[in-house]
Amino acid sequence: MSLHDEFVTLDYGSGGQKTAALIDELLRPALADPLLDALGDGAILPPDAGGSLAFSTDSFVVNPLFFPGGDIGKLAVCGTVNDLAMCGAVPQYLSLALILEEGLPFATLRKIIASLAETARAVGVRVVTGDTKVVERGRGDGVYINTAGVGRVRWPGLTPNAIRPGDKLLVSGPVGDHGTAVMLARNELGVQAGLQRGEMLLSDCAPLHQLADAACRAGGVRVLRDATRGGLATTLNEFAEGHTFGICLTESAIPIRPAVAAACELLGLDPLYCANEGRMICAAAPNTADAVLAALRATPGGEGAAIIGEVNTTYPGRVTLRNAYGANRILSKLAGAQLPRIC
Amino acid sequence: MSLHDEFVTLDYGSGGQKTAALIDELLRPALADPLLDALGDGAILPPDAGGSLAFSTDSFVVNPLFFPGGDIGKLAVCGTVNDLAMCGAVPQYLSLALILEEGLPFATLRKIIASLAETARAVGVRVVTGDTKVVERGRGDGVYINTAGVGRVRWPGLTPNAIRPGDKLLVSGPVGDHGTAVMLARNELGVQAGLQRGEMLLSDCAPLHQLADAACRAGGVRVLRDATRGGLATTLNEFAEGHTFGICLTESAIPIRPAVAAACELLGLDPLYCANEGRMICAAAPNTADAVLAALRATPGGEGAAIIGEVNTTYPGRVTLRNAYGANRILSKLAGAQLPRIC
Repeated sequence: MSLHDEFVTLDYGSGGQKTAALIDELLRPALADPLLDALGDGAILPPDAGGSLAFSTDSFVVNPLFFPGGDIGKLAVCGTVNDLAMCGAVPQYLSLALILEEGLPFATLRKIIASLAETARAVGVRVVTGDTKVVERGRGDGVYINTAGVGRVRWPGLTPNAIRPGDKLLVSGPVGDHGTAVMLARNELGVQAGLQRGEMLLSDCAPLHQLADAACRAGGVRVLRDATRGGLATTLNEFAEGHTFGICLTESAIPIRPAVAAACELLGLDPLYCANEGRMICAAAPNTADAVLAALRATPGGEGAAIIGEVNTTYPGRVTLRNAYGANRILSKLAGAQLPRIC
Repeated sequence: MSLHDEFVTLDYGSGGQKTAALIDELLRPALADPLLDALGDGAILPPDAGGSLAFSTDSFVVNPLFFPGGDIGKLAVCGTVNDLAMCGAVPQYLSLALILEEGLPFATLRKIIASLAETARAVGVRVVTGDTKVVERGRGDGVYINTAGVGRVRWPGLTPNAIRPGDKLLVSGPVGDHGTAVMLARNELGVQAGLQRGEMLLSDCAPLHQLADAACRAGGVRVLRDATRGGLATTLNEFAEGHTFGICLTESAIPIRPAVAAACELLGLDPLYCANEGRMICAAAPNTADAVLAALRATPGGEGAAIIGEVNTTYPGRVTLRNAYGANRILSKLAGAQLPRIC
């Protein structure tokens, strides 16, 4: 049996010969892992020393499949790796579940899997088990990917409940890049050309495990979170809601690229609500916040890190934004779907 | 924020207020687990004693969402629980990732999640982390579900490599029920009415963890596998291929319900290639096979277990079927998609 078709057909989801060809000729060579090669109903992970595990899952339905700075394969690794890293865990193992639409070119699938495998290798996370389904044309959109991940917890106790008044809020770099880049890549609004005269907009899609580790080593970290769907504002609301503290941000301290600000203005978006796929939010103790900032800035991908606000009790449960004139406005959670199919 | 819409809209995948309402008002109450309630980027699993973990994933795209004997929610738990059980593991934790199509009635989603939660409770497996995405109308088909699972290995070393000539092959009950029931539920071929005069056809969708445990306690088990897509014949080919042994089945010993046989004849299907979702295949040592059979028959869901063949070296790497006249024919892997979207 050989993978000589140009497009995915329903037969590749049958569980029979064509599924085997897809696994043996496309997936296994790209992912190259002896645990995956065992091809049982699941992977048996090597024995370990015990302790707490982190376990996470994410599905990826981004449209388009390829965008400046990334693609759905890279995103599918980064998304789950980052969820594990935000749990204080070392990302170790991923599962990979594909829902393919009938008619998908195999060339597209190969590119996506190559990108996914390259990202996994760079992180040092192993793809050890998987599943492939095929749905009829018009019942999917090329490729949907789910990854689940398992990792050993190195930094226990990271939770919004650990946040205290006086703590500082940090972000590992400029916000809004991913959402804006994907939106422009869709080119639905015809603003691409005008923006490309200026700075090229790239997604921030990247693994955050090294930044998470660097921050935790600096000490005093209360909680980590990657600001994906809903953006910075929604993530911070998840920290504050139901608590006796509030979060006060300084507008001028929040890093936003000029090109992102310009694109958001054209598109009618707010960069504080735009999805990020490689930006970490961190709450840290007042006496370690500068050390955490220095650690982030010294780590690749954290050069643009900043302290953007602090925790106080002025507006309990709320996130507020103080502008250059000292006026505060409330940032609530994202209300609707600002940007569907962004990740 | 309250979940007062009748249908899923793109807003429910935004990561903002509506996503939170869906989680807080529909998913969390149904799944009721403190680890899920922590709602971090992933779940932190309680510390354990170490050893090997099994890790597995499956996506479910079955059409229709509800079928006699089950639904996509029950299937999504059983599928991954069974993959873990076939690894010799105790199923402990599941992730739940939903890809919802815009326009899905919330009433449908509630029914599916209730069924999923009930099945998980019955098995004793905990849904501890999740993700929800929403795609535009015409980019999905109601609901696609991915579950990944983690469990501690209790019975290590189960692998087709452990099979030896002389071993017996067992199946835990009649084959072909799930595929045939789903196919009839689609009612595409108009044969439903005629069959319903006779025996009602139900999917065999069920958790297999107790049967797996019972078989392993009896001793001498080489490998376990649930015969899902591709059916009994494809699963046995996965055991035999590349090995110096072959598998010889006795046609008259393979349990097939009369109604399944009749439906398959009408539909032009072969029950040996029809998907099962609650049937376990087991290879066991010659001196323990009878004890394994007795253990299966004494366990709920295994009443119809049978010894269906043996391992020999006559046709290395092949699966053969011996009919009542002593003639052998080769059963190869499923070639095409006999039944798309069956699980």
